[in-house]
Amino acid sequence: MKKIINNPDRALQEMVEGIAAAYPNEVKQLPETTVIVRKDAPVSNKVGIVSGGGSGHEPAHAGYIGKGMLDAAVSGEVFTSPTPDQVLEAIKAVDSGKGVFLVIKNYTGDVINFDMAAELAEAEGIEVEKVVVNDDVAVEDSSFTTGRRGIAGTVFVHKIAGAIAEQGGSLQEVKAVAEKVVENVRSMGMALTSCIVPAAGKPSFQLEDNEMEIGIGIHGEPGIERKEMATAHEIAKELTEKVLNDRDFSGSDVAVMVNGLGATPEMELYIVNKSVQEILKEKGIKVYKTFVGEYMTSLEMAGCSVSLLKLDDEIKSLLNAESSAPAFRI
Amino acid sequence: MKKIINNPDRALQEMVEGIAAAYPNEVKQLPETTVIVRKDAPVSNKVGIVSGGGSGHEPAHAGYIGKGMLDAAVSGEVFTSPTPDQVLEAIKAVDSGKGVFLVIKNYTGDVINFDMAAELAEAEGIEVEKVVVNDDVAVEDSSFTTGRRGIAGTVFVHKIAGAIAEQGGSLQEVKAVAEKVVENVRSMGMALTSCIVPAAGKPSFQLEDNEMEIGIGIHGEPGIERKEMATAHEIAKELTEKVLNDRDFSGSDVAVMVNGLGATPEMELYIVNKSVQEILKEKGIKVYKTFVGEYMTSLEMAGCSVSLLKLDDEIKSLLNAESSAPAFRI
Repeated sequence: MKKIINNPDRALQEMVEGIAAAYPNEVKQLPETTVIVRKDAPVSNKVGIVSGGGSGHEPAHAGYIGKGMLDAAVSGEVFTSPTPDQVLEAIKAVDSGKGVFLVIKNYTGDVINFDMAAELAEAEGIEVEKVVVNDDVAVEDSSFTTGRRGIAGTVFVHKIAGAIAEQGGSLQEVKAVAEKVVENVRSMGMALTSCIVPAAGKPSFQLEDNEMEIGIGIHGEPGIERKEMATAHEIAKELTEKVLNDRDFSGSDVAVMVNGLGATPEMELYIVNKSVQEILKEKGIKVYKTFVGEYMTSLEMAGCSVSLLKLDDEIKSLLNAESSAPAFRI
Repeated sequence: MKKIINNPDRALQEMVEGIAAAYPNEVKQLPETTVIVRKDAPVSNKVGIVSGGGSGHEPAHAGYIGKGMLDAAVSGEVFTSPTPDQVLEAIKAVDSGKGVFLVIKNYTGDVINFDMAAELAEAEGIEVEKVVVNDDVAVEDSSFTTGRRGIAGTVFVHKIAGAIAEQGGSLQEVKAVAEKVVENVRSMGMALTSCIVPAAGKPSFQLEDNEMEIGIGIHGEPGIERKEMATAHEIAKELTEKVLNDRDFSGSDVAVMVNGLGATPEMELYIVNKSVQEILKEKGIKVYKTFVGEYMTSLEMAGCSVSLLKLDDEIKSLLNAESSAPAFRI
């Protein structure tokens, strides 16, 4: 294992300190936690938006902290849920009295720990609501979830929920629009390589030089099918069609996200995007906005995912609203 | 070689089409070229800013096209200079009559071809000025250059030159401030792995599991020293001190860029950033703004570079000016 770290046991803490040190005017680290919050938290008379999960998905989630997006991000160890007390600290730090909304990716550990934190916060008099994102169409249940996994589509939930909160939406309004995004977003991913969790020191699985894995998650868990390496167009077709087969996107405008999992050159993501756009055009689906880059990664995994979000006027307007988050500026 | 491409011979063209397809409201591809320009080019009464070079450095350079940054990016084959006729097309497309400014990374092929394009454009009555960026302190001459190489610090030149042009600066004013940035920016990089040029199909060099390469460029060429793998703090110290030894940054505010070369998880970049900030603090150098992410890559190379830009009030103001470029929004 070659990694630019000091010690696997300190990687999480040092990363969080490195994030706080990068944006001292925008964010702050809560003392003795791995929680990063907006510098001006709690923002008065605004619903606080909290997300997080295991680390290793950067820029998710701390890169999405900013005006118009998240108020706090809680990081656990790599691919490991943060503990309820850490999530509780985040909730308390961003509550202005208008309530706190949790965006949870559907992984069993995250769901349990965020739920427990919500209960603890409610016991302290803070109103908490949540949404569980399950955009991955690859599997119904996985090694780490009951039901579908939450992957790159989660970033759209951060953006939209953050925008309506910034505009003064109530906790129930934030919840309603976040649920609408979850209903309307689907994703599918693939990998060329595994990734190496620092504490494990070796790849989570092995792929041969002529193999790829379809339906991959973002925690180094295996996908649904190992097959022979294909062309970019075939890969784009397989991912996009799996998404389109899962939900009726016809007649609607969509937002597209072609997401890199960590080690895939942006050149390759744009080649995939070319095919994704062609496929959507053939099907008569109109693309309103496209995002290409690394939004939800799995350490240094090579691979990509394709997400589609079905839009209406409300979602379009919130998607276009200002965001000052370092990893999602609009 | 596993890559998400269709055919190495078509990778460049398909990438350019994929970029144009991603941002149809912001950019357009010039027909039958690998040139991407602002959709509204030429912007009236504005100096046009053109950059480019070999592909494989994405998001450089097309990701930096937008209001307040570049007007055009010319992409050559991977790590190969674009031809003079392609650069000429870019120059012609962005000239509003106020002249065109070229930002060239110091690689012999780029310098020759951009210069030739400038001469051809001048013969057609277009005023052209240029700057050659040579921020890499690792080597005085390299396999591909006379003099120092241009690497990640180039992105600061794009930003600053683009900002003053957007504010109505004349060609000479753009040139003066771009030269000031080049005088004041220094970078140093290192790698854990090589990268694979699609047409070559194999890594440019090999590093063992316990080795790293210091002073790496961004074209797969070897660095200046191969040594035993070190900690993130030791790596940050070596890169930062090489930069600090090359120019006197004391008493000034600086901008910091911790740049990923393609496959390094953002987690590791933030761990490096933590050390860079500590080292600068110890030396009494005040950090004004920090950028952490992939700005100037070398395909799927694992590794990073550290850049420092010495600031004055003019540069600060231009650095903070609005940019709508997808890969550098401010």
